[in-house]
Amino acid sequence: MSLFMDVHSGFKGATREQLEAEHRKDKQYEKEEGVRFVRAWADPVSGKAFCLAEGPNIEAVKRVHQKAGHPAEEIYELKYDIE
Amino acid sequence: MSLFMDVHSGFKGATREQLEAEHRKDKQYEKEEGVRFVRAWADPVSGKAFCLAEGPNIEAVKRVHQKAGHPAEEIYELKYDIE
Repeated sequence: MSLFMDVHSGFKGATREQLEAEHRKDKQYEKEEGVRFVRAWADPVSGKAFCLAEGPNIEAVKRVHQKAGHPAEEIYELKYDIE
Repeated sequence: MSLFMDVHSGFKGATREQLEAEHRKDKQYEKEEGVRFVRAWADPVSGKAFCLAEGPNIEAVKRVHQKAGHPAEEIYELKYDIE
């Protein structure tokens, strides 16, 4: 299992309820791809959203977001996790 | 206190030791700016690094990274933190 950060744009002006609803869609598809979402954060001023997830590979994380209807613009494999 | 995500580039090929050394520099300056780093992640393939931090405002987080010698290209205020 690896750790991934995906970056989305396009959430400018989104409410907490809208973001939670989008993230629930991700969670609907996570199990079938072997992915587990750890946390998500969003800035409704810039429209940026970040999701931290564990999964087998970058393609699996990408497929979850595609199935959820909001493909991620960028996904990074986080080799280093630093406290 | 707000939550912030900052995004850095330029860590392509960096080792864990190099990234930990850079992050220690952030932590040297966090207290004087009222900032607390929560976690950092990096992808040495793309060179991207992400830092999650709490702080009073975006300028304080920016100053920490400037003092540490690696200014962040992007800093976002995370109004929403979703589990």
